[in-house]
Amino acid sequence: MRNQTIYFKNNDVGILETATIAGPKEGEGPLGRYFHNVLKDDLLKQKSYEKAETKIHISVIKNILNKTKLTPRDIDCVFAGDILDEMIVSSFAMREFDIPFIGVYNACASFGEALINASCMLDSGYMNRVICSTSSHFSTAERQYRFPLELGNQRTPLSQWTVTGAGCTLLEKNKNLPVKITCATIGKVVDFGVRDVNDMGAAMTPAAMDTLITHFENTKRKPDYYDMILTGDLGDAASRLLKKLIKRQGYDLDENYNDCGVLIYNREAQQVGQGGSGTACSNLVFNAYIYDKMLQGDLKRVLLVPTGALISKTSTLQGETMPGIAHAICLEAV
Amino acid sequence: MRNQTIYFKNNDVGILETATIAGPKEGEGPLGRYFHNVLKDDLLKQKSYEKAETKIHISVIKNILNKTKLTPRDIDCVFAGDILDEMIVSSFAMREFDIPFIGVYNACASFGEALINASCMLDSGYMNRVICSTSSHFSTAERQYRFPLELGNQRTPLSQWTVTGAGCTLLEKNKNLPVKITCATIGKVVDFGVRDVNDMGAAMTPAAMDTLITHFENTKRKPDYYDMILTGDLGDAASRLLKKLIKRQGYDLDENYNDCGVLIYNREAQQVGQGGSGTACSNLVFNAYIYDKMLQGDLKRVLLVPTGALISKTSTLQGETMPGIAHAICLEAV
Repeated sequence: MRNQTIYFKNNDVGILETATIAGPKEGEGPLGRYFHNVLKDDLLKQKSYEKAETKIHISVIKNILNKTKLTPRDIDCVFAGDILDEMIVSSFAMREFDIPFIGVYNACASFGEALINASCMLDSGYMNRVICSTSSHFSTAERQYRFPLELGNQRTPLSQWTVTGAGCTLLEKNKNLPVKITCATIGKVVDFGVRDVNDMGAAMTPAAMDTLITHFENTKRKPDYYDMILTGDLGDAASRLLKKLIKRQGYDLDENYNDCGVLIYNREAQQVGQGGSGTACSNLVFNAYIYDKMLQGDLKRVLLVPTGALISKTSTLQGETMPGIAHAICLEAV
Repeated sequence: MRNQTIYFKNNDVGILETATIAGPKEGEGPLGRYFHNVLKDDLLKQKSYEKAETKIHISVIKNILNKTKLTPRDIDCVFAGDILDEMIVSSFAMREFDIPFIGVYNACASFGEALINASCMLDSGYMNRVICSTSSHFSTAERQYRFPLELGNQRTPLSQWTVTGAGCTLLEKNKNLPVKITCATIGKVVDFGVRDVNDMGAAMTPAAMDTLITHFENTKRKPDYYDMILTGDLGDAASRLLKKLIKRQGYDLDENYNDCGVLIYNREAQQVGQGGSGTACSNLVFNAYIYDKMLQGDLKRVLLVPTGALISKTSTLQGETMPGIAHAICLEAV
């Protein structure tokens, strides 16, 4: 029988460094002090928000190279993605670097997909050092998926706020690094028929549940194996829904469970609906906050489960439902 | 120094089966008799061309499972992609199958990216059997990237015709299969500043050249190592440009070079401008025609180089240039 979980048995897929750039609103949130850089202006003097997001994506890769004193020649590949049409941000960012490029797309779960593909390349010895990067921007996503910003339309109670920012993880084949990726579960597309484009959390919950249960079954672990289990961007209501539904299947997600979309904002004070979403959401929370906690010794075993709603404005206008996907990545600190 | 080429040294990444579904126009072209299925109607009684493309993508995966008498449980993962916004075709196709899904996006080079990622998974032993599938459709691509079909606008001389169809390759970890993937070169994003969205061939040529030269340098092979070198969808003018430019660098692409976009249509009789393009172009030509020639013993060593132009309608409207990418996959018949 198929096992959806891949084990990196050599124990040498390590995190060498992380870098994040957060938008102004994200900087004002509860994780503000953890982000490596916080923007004052999310347009960055560019002519369009798309160009601004591209600039942030380029900057975060430059930042991680600077931090590690590495050059593009030292990086074997970049695994990158974003949620704009045809992934123009990642693609345009990568023309600035003389580094091979693999584009990954599973909507807001793309950061998870990047980590999994990259880990396989390192563990198996095809590559020695790779970057996983993703970005999103409130102003590019909002006008692409929903309404022109100028319309100033009201937001529904179940809507989420697309995170502005970019982050990246530099992985190295190295047994001596303090935080390792030790296994990962690749998710399936799950569709429970949710059609409300303002309720992406509900659309992604069944996929998150499917991947979590598969991960627990494959690894014969219980949720309490982990110090923290983090979904990507279900938001407040849907992450509570997930806890309820998965309990019926015999799995208790208690104090050790949270959602990156919930963690990144002061939900009520910042008026972000159910919380954050976007390709940068799980990325920023992991690369800034969680990785720091793991280095400090506060968290030893973390299961990161980036979630994605597989939609486009065309599919929404054609009345399609919203399939979801989630991938689980197990990170362990020595 | 970085080596962009990955070698599958176990010699066990084999092709178990291929399947293709071509549109009516593609069926009338010179490769018509090689396609496993040819559609009579490219709307398939669906309400939209997007739904039709999704149906074709689903059908081709079902067809390959039927041909091999395998079930979804026998497949470890599907690596799939398309060129519609947010890859809705691949994502929606995958909700029909209970199989883990990795979405790949490098525009029309996505088929190459799928083959590379999948080969790594098999060679390293993480997976045993995977499907690589991509699709495109003239009527979904045309209205998304350029103009509404109803406008009936004139086509410029350098334009290409998006291939309608879907194809897939079923790879298995198996030393006894007749055609193997033996190495692959991952490409970089290359941008020479071409802005004309109707001249994608010129935009992709520098990327194809970069990847080819890198592949020859990495492997210390000359072009004549291969019985056939095939770019993905440069079209007639740009593939002649490639031959000319790469000759200056000391590499002769002669009788053994061709382009999938040139092969798939009777260019003048079928009025397709420079030839075919699209995520299905290199896929259909390889999975139907080239694989057959390899099985027949007519071709022993093939270098497949799917090419992609990394654009969106937003980037075009914002006056951006068109970066290109190309990946090279070496296939060898026993």
